[in-house]
Amino acid sequence: MTDKVVLDHGAGGGMSQELISGTIAGILGDTYIGEMEDSALLELPSMRIAMTTDSFVVDPIFFGNGDIGKIAIAGTVNDLAVSGARPLYLTLAVVLEEGFELEDFRRILRSVRDAARVADVKIVAGDTKVVRRGEADGIFLNTTGVGMLERPFTLSSRTLQTGDQVIVTGFLGDHSIHILSMREGLGFERRVHSDCAVLSHVVADVLDTCGDGVRCIRDITRGGLGTVVNEFAQASAITIELDASALPIRPETAMAADMLGVDVMYLANEGNLCLVVAAEQAEAALKALHAHPECAQAAVVGQVVTAEAGTVRMVDVDGRVSTVELLYGAQLPRLC
Amino acid sequence: MTDKVVLDHGAGGGMSQELISGTIAGILGDTYIGEMEDSALLELPSMRIAMTTDSFVVDPIFFGNGDIGKIAIAGTVNDLAVSGARPLYLTLAVVLEEGFELEDFRRILRSVRDAARVADVKIVAGDTKVVRRGEADGIFLNTTGVGMLERPFTLSSRTLQTGDQVIVTGFLGDHSIHILSMREGLGFERRVHSDCAVLSHVVADVLDTCGDGVRCIRDITRGGLGTVVNEFAQASAITIELDASALPIRPETAMAADMLGVDVMYLANEGNLCLVVAAEQAEAALKALHAHPECAQAAVVGQVVTAEAGTVRMVDVDGRVSTVELLYGAQLPRLC
Repeated sequence: MTDKVVLDHGAGGGMSQELISGTIAGILGDTYIGEMEDSALLELPSMRIAMTTDSFVVDPIFFGNGDIGKIAIAGTVNDLAVSGARPLYLTLAVVLEEGFELEDFRRILRSVRDAARVADVKIVAGDTKVVRRGEADGIFLNTTGVGMLERPFTLSSRTLQTGDQVIVTGFLGDHSIHILSMREGLGFERRVHSDCAVLSHVVADVLDTCGDGVRCIRDITRGGLGTVVNEFAQASAITIELDASALPIRPETAMAADMLGVDVMYLANEGNLCLVVAAEQAEAALKALHAHPECAQAAVVGQVVTAEAGTVRMVDVDGRVSTVELLYGAQLPRLC
Repeated sequence: MTDKVVLDHGAGGGMSQELISGTIAGILGDTYIGEMEDSALLELPSMRIAMTTDSFVVDPIFFGNGDIGKIAIAGTVNDLAVSGARPLYLTLAVVLEEGFELEDFRRILRSVRDAARVADVKIVAGDTKVVRRGEADGIFLNTTGVGMLERPFTLSSRTLQTGDQVIVTGFLGDHSIHILSMREGLGFERRVHSDCAVLSHVVADVLDTCGDGVRCIRDITRGGLGTVVNEFAQASAITIELDASALPIRPETAMAADMLGVDVMYLANEGNLCLVVAAEQAEAALKALHAHPECAQAAVVGQVVTAEAGTVRMVDVDGRVSTVELLYGAQLPRLC
């Protein structure tokens, strides 16, 4: 590991994992009980809760169809939801740069409010810090959420079994391409919008429908689908085989990714789920997902097979097999 | 209100209140149930929890006897404790600037671990974002905490009654003077150290000893004692009368504050409590406090009197009375 923080430490790939599992978990030791899942599952004397935290530094702050406020609510609500929890309470902490437009702050707060209404969560505590001009870039948000685990089963990426089906609910990479295109002035942002969305109601529907036929769910954010499925494969020591032709990717997104020299497999979404479900529940899960417009593209994109443990492979339309590696770094900062 | 964010928006005085109660609470509307207390008190089906959030942007990151990691744990743990909760779980979110020294990050994590051990809390979830060089100033932390409300009574600044005694547990302003002196190169930092400390065990002792004889507790942070007592006076619509000669202030702190042109009454501490207790419990509370080295200076500094509602006055050694105003702004960024 280099001796200074580099952008790849925040990219969600192998270097991020190294920083988290090595440096952070290593040093915190007995005071750290975090796992690699999206939320921590906590035992209280008479109930179980889930807890998760996320900071948001997206650049630009306002994009075509959303802003940092919407992402901050959707991101944390989705993290709670995919752990099987019902999101209840969020905190909102703001770091503002001196000179930031108050009207922009108000606009962000309106997005926070609107997204919180959709998610049916309450903002219960806040904090506001102001740093001097040049010491931050406009505004950074942190949302931390608590949800209740009410279901009799637990979702876990450690429970995958041969034959399980892998489902993706939306077009891969759209959020990243939208943001990157705005940042680079490529013009794709008018045709590829961010998928940023609160999906807690979708998760609730699928769990109501399929019960513990759902093994685990993850929202595809930093690191993209490639990272999510690698983490699944490692956690359950199984192989995931993806069908390249089944992956939902917009032609414009593929084209933009090509121009930018990035791989759609590792691009962040902000409203896209990856689910692993028992084979016999796959059809029911898809039906439940298709009832929601945000998940119109939901499709089975792969399955769990018996082969080398902890690996992911992709089969293309001609039957050629390649390995989907865990990316080490990505050099794409501030997508969320 | 000006149309851009200014440093005073983060100073903990009147402008901060305006931003929080006006802009933030105003816009979030029904999605916001935060109060002006240190933690939100939340009802779950079978229990009550407290939840609080804080971002930390202290400059310098390392100071004489502590660092941003220690403050981040102490600050959030203390906020939970003064709400009457037993701190249990914390999240830790990090925003790192590209180029930040990893060894400095490790040193901060060791402080986080050590403070978490003292506080007997677990870090249960984390998040790490990296922004490009120049987009943040080294490192910003956010800690969000959950604690359990196990006691049969609730602490509230709305319950103050005539005759109640106001206690302060440590020297006023030391943390701020230490940090400001380092920043300005004044040299006081060698004689005035930061008071930064985890105080949850102190709060537990006082509550065990005095029960609901304790009306409310607040840790004296941004805005200083002047802000805390004004918020108390407003919340209970009573008058607080402070005895100037009883306020614990180090001569060096007074001298440094004079040189810096700041008022000790409005300076932040990071390990100093203000308690209001029923008169008959004041002696027992002081005894419990004095058992802890961090609270050796604990003293009664004032009382609740019947006069103009919502005001604070100070009586000096010659019997002269002045008003302790709620400060509107303070121009002292990044003390925590």
